[in-house]
Amino acid sequence: MDITYSPIGIIHTPFQQPKGMPVQPSGAFDIQGRVEIYPQYAEGLKDLEEFSHIILLYHLHKAGEYSLSVIPFLDNEPRGVFATRAPKRPNPIGLSVVRLLGIDNNVLHIENVDILNNTPLLDVKPYVPEFDHQAEIRTGWLEKVKGKVKNKRSNGRFQ
Amino acid sequence: MDITYSPIGIIHTPFQQPKGMPVQPSGAFDIQGRVEIYPQYAEGLKDLEEFSHIILLYHLHKAGEYSLSVIPFLDNEPRGVFATRAPKRPNPIGLSVVRLLGIDNNVLHIENVDILNNTPLLDVKPYVPEFDHQAEIRTGWLEKVKGKVKNKRSNGRFQ
Repeated sequence: MDITYSPIGIIHTPFQQPKGMPVQPSGAFDIQGRVEIYPQYAEGLKDLEEFSHIILLYHLHKAGEYSLSVIPFLDNEPRGVFATRAPKRPNPIGLSVVRLLGIDNNVLHIENVDILNNTPLLDVKPYVPEFDHQAEIRTGWLEKVKGKVKNKRSNGRFQ
Repeated sequence: MDITYSPIGIIHTPFQQPKGMPVQPSGAFDIQGRVEIYPQYAEGLKDLEEFSHIILLYHLHKAGEYSLSVIPFLDNEPRGVFATRAPKRPNPIGLSVVRLLGIDNNVLHIENVDILNNTPLLDVKPYVPEFDHQAEIRTGWLEKVKGKVKNKRSNGRFQ
């Protein structure tokens, strides 16, 4: 069964190529970008400006062929792709929680952006900690290395 | 531009119809389900069991036609669909953070499930608070009503 989506907009950021990008929003502090929502969907943005953070779901358009075993940016061992946030996934959907600075008509101004320029946007959702945040967390192989994400940049491994 | 995905698995839950479902994982405490990953993708599950929580992205297969203005379950006023978590979205992708109880071969046992039975799965990602959780949050119209989510059940509004 195939599932077909159409982008609702496009994400503009300073990152012109995958190499050298931050690998998560927490490594993209202060980086700003713009999300251009196509005009036919702009009505759906009503009430969004009151949220400080939003979830962007987007198509990782430069991910290339998927791989079930990947070496993540933060590690040197091969990991199952579903235990990583690497882009080479069977369905290359990216997820970032970003700060919403403001909305001008159909343009969202955002901050903490770890997304490649011209990425097709699939969905926007409000970020609600009561829905999305969990306590008592274990994070497996990332436990020891996740602190490195603030300074880590991608090395083109997933191009 | 169309983007085509294929499900990587299917989500089994006790919820046979949209009406009466919890509207978020925090309203589905203790509800258990199973995610069956199709065998050709099972290799990608390596290392996932060490994570206590996972993000499921799935196709809201019963959402029907989208609407840019919706009345959310938690409110009585029309809101822009992108300022809600309602299913009738232009690209009906659902997102839930659920507890991972364990993995048997290609089957994930999960808890806190607010998902309809037989929902097609698009992606699994590890939940990492350092990536996904933000501080200093404003949640707009949800600020006053989000506490109701623990007891709220859907009323079939989005069927």
